[in-house]
Amino acid sequence: MAKLLTKKHGLITNSLISAMFFRRYQRMLTVGIQQNSNPQASVTSRIAVGRSLKNASEYGTVSPTQNDMTKKPKVAEISHQNAAKVLANYDTILLDCDGVLWQTDHVTPIQGIPSVISMLRDQGKEVLFVTNNSMHARHEYLQKFQSHGFDAAQEDIFCVAYASALYLQKTVGFHGSVYVIGNEGMSHELDLARINHFGTGADPDPVYNSIRDLHEIHLLDNVEAVLVGYDKHFSLNKLFKACSYLTNHTCSYIATNSIEKSVLLASNRRQPLTGAIVDAVTSASKRTPTVLGKPHPLLFSCIRAARPHVNPARTLIIGDSVPSDMGLAKAAGIDSALVLTGASTLSTLGNFPGLEPEFFLQSLTSLIH
Amino acid sequence: MAKLLTKKHGLITNSLISAMFFRRYQRMLTVGIQQNSNPQASVTSRIAVGRSLKNASEYGTVSPTQNDMTKKPKVAEISHQNAAKVLANYDTILLDCDGVLWQTDHVTPIQGIPSVISMLRDQGKEVLFVTNNSMHARHEYLQKFQSHGFDAAQEDIFCVAYASALYLQKTVGFHGSVYVIGNEGMSHELDLARINHFGTGADPDPVYNSIRDLHEIHLLDNVEAVLVGYDKHFSLNKLFKACSYLTNHTCSYIATNSIEKSVLLASNRRQPLTGAIVDAVTSASKRTPTVLGKPHPLLFSCIRAARPHVNPARTLIIGDSVPSDMGLAKAAGIDSALVLTGASTLSTLGNFPGLEPEFFLQSLTSLIH
Repeated sequence: MAKLLTKKHGLITNSLISAMFFRRYQRMLTVGIQQNSNPQASVTSRIAVGRSLKNASEYGTVSPTQNDMTKKPKVAEISHQNAAKVLANYDTILLDCDGVLWQTDHVTPIQGIPSVISMLRDQGKEVLFVTNNSMHARHEYLQKFQSHGFDAAQEDIFCVAYASALYLQKTVGFHGSVYVIGNEGMSHELDLARINHFGTGADPDPVYNSIRDLHEIHLLDNVEAVLVGYDKHFSLNKLFKACSYLTNHTCSYIATNSIEKSVLLASNRRQPLTGAIVDAVTSASKRTPTVLGKPHPLLFSCIRAARPHVNPARTLIIGDSVPSDMGLAKAAGIDSALVLTGASTLSTLGNFPGLEPEFFLQSLTSLIH
Repeated sequence: MAKLLTKKHGLITNSLISAMFFRRYQRMLTVGIQQNSNPQASVTSRIAVGRSLKNASEYGTVSPTQNDMTKKPKVAEISHQNAAKVLANYDTILLDCDGVLWQTDHVTPIQGIPSVISMLRDQGKEVLFVTNNSMHARHEYLQKFQSHGFDAAQEDIFCVAYASALYLQKTVGFHGSVYVIGNEGMSHELDLARINHFGTGADPDPVYNSIRDLHEIHLLDNVEAVLVGYDKHFSLNKLFKACSYLTNHTCSYIATNSIEKSVLLASNRRQPLTGAIVDAVTSASKRTPTVLGKPHPLLFSCIRAARPHVNPARTLIIGDSVPSDMGLAKAAGIDSALVLTGASTLSTLGNFPGLEPEFFLQSLTSLIH
């Protein structure tokens, strides 16, 4: 814990963050909270750099969609044959987790992943993990990586629970409490960042019997933000508290992520995800959240704050979700590759005009050459 | 209980429902479920009759918005002076409950309501109660009316819990179970209609610890519908079950109502309502509900099924919500009056083009002349 704290606080305060970028980031956070709006547009304009748009045909592969140019975009496949040529253009590889490192059910392994991670590192690539999954803290990802046969440093992980803590910590003048709809992982990251928070775990109040009971539920006075992520204890009481705190328009409304509404665990089982919880809070509170996760580029800002040397023009994001991963890529001005082991298929690309990736690959193991 | 059962079954099967209308209603219900779409358009075309659009100036009142005709519609006020003249045009008065009979906090009385109800009945008007509040069964409304100083017959109450039971009962070939997100009132109405249902009350399964636990939660096989209303026990487990059952596309998705997202109980307390719960289920299940409540006209179809003599051209709906009550009025081709004791004010009329009521009144007591 002490080591984590030292590393994290070092990460925020030391020279990794240039003074100029820090001021911009701080201002961006403030503006985001004050306006309570999606800060995507303004952030994009700040972080976007000249983008290296690559010609798909450069890599000599034939797109399976090439025969139907009127409907589908041309996307180059990364295969064992051309992987070396593609990777030569990138120094930093951002890897989504669910559907990329393991299947979307969160548990089933994808064969060969440890070899891919090793190979990329052997080639001197910087491998970072970027995920919208708000269930876990970074140390939990470390354990999960190990259980799947590879290691990482905590600093390589940019999950939205960590981003939430970072966002709240950087907010100028934030002295109050945060009401959190979230799991233990979120609580852990907030503790590390010394954010005063409450709400995680089972709601302590009984289910009410009458409207009068709702008037008597104890609400705190100094709640300055409501942070909503995935919460397996989500309940109507929590929804009541979140939207009651949000009646105060100086109370910020922050969501870890919102695009993921549910995932099919089996043919007859669908797990609700953070997006559905956020939709309920948004609906009941009549407020609009500031969203930290993909496709909103605050997560990439977080990476750049910690790693200013990351060059967007030499960065590739590999993910299984067109709206989430390709969405971030377009917003942040970086290249992207869709991996077909998860949420999106090539045939769905036509549903997301403007979000076509530069590449697709059958599996992350296609990178091995 | 026996009395209620007898009354209700009598209401469904006896000669109150003409054979022709019954067949249409049954077909409409089937189509609604099969298409899983909002049946508003087709229903409206069937139930709408020549509408008696009245000239606001006919009643000799000056609209407070008349000086700014470019922005706001002209709406006639019903006052003690012109109430008799207005009421002479109507035989049936449909009264919304929350915000009309009592305040929107559900508990605070509005003075003078019993006198209004008595006066309308003394004049031979048919007074019916039409509410989107899905918390209560009809017998609970009877108790609430009595506590506010007036009575009604159970047959005068068209609440969405009752409409849900009626809808499910009338669905051709419905033999399975209904998974219900709802309160005891809903359960009571479903019991009366002999609908096989489960889910109300606290969810019996513990909060899961891992994704594997979600795979092991017991799900029934013969669930033919998911019905979503207000549920003070709403939880992530319930959301998981609802959207798991809805993975079967032959399973119908029905919502009691959806337009009411939350209500401000006090300056710092906001109670989430059915609409927010429905939004979470819709979001996570990726399905679209068939909505029974206002502004969708199925509730008016239910009234006409039970009371075929109700003449839309001689009916006035009085409610406090422009989108809900005036929305139903426009969809069903009946006149409406906005009462200013609840959710909407005159200044919000401009936000709902096409939903302007014929009248407004400061309080229901303005009807007394």
